[in-house]
Amino acid sequence: MTTVGILGGGQLARMLALSGAPLGLRFLVMDTAGDACAAQFAPMVVGDYTDTAALAEFASKIDVATFDFENVPSQSAQWLADRVPVFPSPRALAIAQDRLAEKTLFRELGIPVPDFVAIDTREDLDAAIAAIGTPCILKTRRLGYDGKGQFRLKSAADTDAAWQALGAQAAKVGLILEAFVPFERELSVVAVRGRDGEFRSWPLTENWHVDGVLSASLAPASVDAAMAETAFAYARKLAEAIDYVGVFALELFCRAGELLANELAPRVHNSGHWTIEGSETSQFQNHLRAVLGLPLGDTRMVGRACMLNWVGAMPDANAVLQEAGGHWHDYGKSPREGRKVGHATLRAESAQDLSAAVQKVGQALGRGEQVAPVIAALRDSPADR
Amino acid sequence: MTTVGILGGGQLARMLALSGAPLGLRFLVMDTAGDACAAQFAPMVVGDYTDTAALAEFASKIDVATFDFENVPSQSAQWLADRVPVFPSPRALAIAQDRLAEKTLFRELGIPVPDFVAIDTREDLDAAIAAIGTPCILKTRRLGYDGKGQFRLKSAADTDAAWQALGAQAAKVGLILEAFVPFERELSVVAVRGRDGEFRSWPLTENWHVDGVLSASLAPASVDAAMAETAFAYARKLAEAIDYVGVFALELFCRAGELLANELAPRVHNSGHWTIEGSETSQFQNHLRAVLGLPLGDTRMVGRACMLNWVGAMPDANAVLQEAGGHWHDYGKSPREGRKVGHATLRAESAQDLSAAVQKVGQALGRGEQVAPVIAALRDSPADR
Ligand SMILES: Nc1ncnc2c1ncn2[C@@H]1O[C@H](COP(=O)(O)OP(=O)(O)OP(=O)(O)O)[C@@H](O)[C@H]1O
Ligand SMILES: Nc1ncnc2c1ncn2[C@@H]1O[C@H](COP(=O)(O)OP(=O)(O)OP(=O)(O)O)[C@@H](O)[C@H]1O
Repeated sequence: MTTVGILGGGQLARMLALSGAPLGLRFLVMDTAGDACAAQFAPMVVGDYTDTAALAEFASKIDVATFDFENVPSQSAQWLADRVPVFPSPRALAIAQDRLAEKTLFRELGIPVPDFVAIDTREDLDAAIAAIGTPCILKTRRLGYDGKGQFRLKSAADTDAAWQALGAQAAKVGLILEAFVPFERELSVVAVRGRDGEFRSWPLTENWHVDGVLSASLAPASVDAAMAETAFAYARKLAEAIDYVGVFALELFCRAGELLANELAPRVHNSGHWTIEGSETSQFQNHLRAVLGLPLGDTRMVGRACMLNWVGAMPDANAVLQEAGGHWHDYGKSPREGRKVGHATLRAESAQDLSAAVQKVGQALGRGEQVAPVIAALRDSPADR
Repeated sequence: MTTVGILGGGQLARMLALSGAPLGLRFLVMDTAGDACAAQFAPMVVGDYTDTAALAEFASKIDVATFDFENVPSQSAQWLADRVPVFPSPRALAIAQDRLAEKTLFRELGIPVPDFVAIDTREDLDAAIAAIGTPCILKTRRLGYDGKGQFRLKSAADTDAAWQALGAQAAKVGLILEAFVPFERELSVVAVRGRDGEFRSWPLTENWHVDGVLSASLAPASVDAAMAETAFAYARKLAEAIDYVGVFALELFCRAGELLANELAPRVHNSGHWTIEGSETSQFQNHLRAVLGLPLGDTRMVGRACMLNWVGAMPDANAVLQEAGGHWHDYGKSPREGRKVGHATLRAESAQDLSAAVQKVGQALGRGEQVAPVIAALRDSPADR
């Protein structure tokens, strides 16, 4: 009997447990909140990630640990790794936690990135804006997620406001200034790497964000084979460089046919949720297979899929349940503004059928804006395979 | 927040909970055994089904009840139904629990059945054997499962042995004598009926038993459309006659192109496990949708599927995990002779690919006998759609 410990008890932990159960696994979740939604389907240790008593209890009951939450302090990850196997490694986690380390690594590996400069002081910021130009984005180096800890500058006149908003973070979590990329589209590679180095990627996914939060994903993204190969090669190079084990996402901007890396998410990723129904093996089960050293599952798609995120509150389920390829995912969370509370996946054999289903659901739920870019992308997609 | 209570905490309850979680449901299982495997993923009330204190606790915490175990005493089901909605109804359950009531109903509905006679005494048995002929099977009317409570008679010379084995049950659970059907194949209809009467069936499944226990299933069964329609019509007529709500299986014998009904399983069924990966909506999620009055999900197949049952102990997982369409299901049970401890589903786009995968797995696990009939059936199957 193998027990997998998961640091963080949100929807990712919940879906890991649900998809790992058929492997005969048990799970133990650790979270700071007693009402974390994974605890509805797995036992939980409640405690702060820096609380060594809680961590010790957690460690004593598990065979291997992994993450639902990428911002677990890397010292805590290391403390655990001294006691049980931890995948991905604390080192890989540390790199992904730091936008500066991450982007520096991308650049070293020949993976194109938007211009960026580390910012420690107000003077650094002025100099960086002069060097990079505007528009640009000031971001915290660490602890950002869902677009939090970011300030967009349209022109140098926004410098004061930017510093006002984030300057105090410079000494705490660090800052980085990035060129704003006027991208045509956002793509992500969701991939898995085994303990033995085997690498597999799901088809490329196209993503749309609203207010910095993922709103919709479409797979496969309609890009030419060469671009997809480039994206996979970047992901692979990156995973090999840091000896990554498990599922991860590489978020990319596409501008004028060129790919620029935005960030590495060192865990199962929202843009891979469609793999539950749209792929032979879900990202969740493959993450567990990787972490446990089991054979990786096939990542081929089964049809086409669109994922719609539910943020804040769940809409009416019926519109989705009535669709032939409609799959509902309610994370069992209470509603709260900006909170990811669930998603739906629509699956179909052809782009045309998928488009019709997405349109119907968007209309039924009064979410025309959310589905519009997906429908436009499907209209442009090449003929079905 | 809706909590579904499940009477019985075995693998069926476990898979119901895992597939119902995405609907935002909570579960509560009731079982007589504290180590019931569903309790690994759902809270549990431990108690005898006739213990009204335990039943009352269970009832107080749930919004609706259903079954993992068809032999819950129908009085207990009725006791519950007086307090919370119960699906399928205690009446439907009671019919399915009694081979005599069930077969009598089949006959009334014009669904062909093997000859059968109710047996109360040794004299009844002699008369029935004379009337029905041999070979035949003496079965308990109630509480049989996985071929338990059955005695096969090759000739009238076996009468003493049969009465020796089961005569004492006549006064307890009743007996029935059935003609032995020299069937060419066994089929099952797995279907679902909603609270509003909507009826949907998955494609017909072919099944193979070893020692009365399901060993392998193949879907779709290669039967002509007319036979499939007949089978679906029987299932529908039956479900409507007893106002059945939820998933059920109708087990059929096929002999010389004719279908004979064997039994009604008033729950998700082992021959429908392949629907988890092989169908747009699994039997587990559709059972919950039906019980809750939600729209039923699409029952179309995605490719072709073969399910292999693991009885007694789990074989090595790797042979299955290495297959592209290989899916592993370990119920988290301890090994025990004759116990269903898990299954594997192999999914493929064509009969040829499926056959190759089944063959490979059978060989790797030294289970040539288990897979041989599946391979033979796939060889005979018509060209791929
Ligand atoms: N340099 C940039 N140029 C243009 N848009 C950007 C840039 N950086 C971020 N964005 C936009 O903001 C979104 C969120 O940014 P980023 O990925 O850095 O944030 P995050 O807080 O790490 O979010 P998450 O981890 O949820 O993806 C991006 O997906 C993109 O839409
Ligand atoms: N009348 C019959 N003629 C030929 N074979 C039979 C007959 N009845 C039962 N069998 C064989 O025994 C198997 C199990 O029988 P049956 O379905 O009655 O048992 P059970 O204990 O209710 O099993 P389960 O509920 O697991 O299907 C059947 O699937 C079939 O292979």
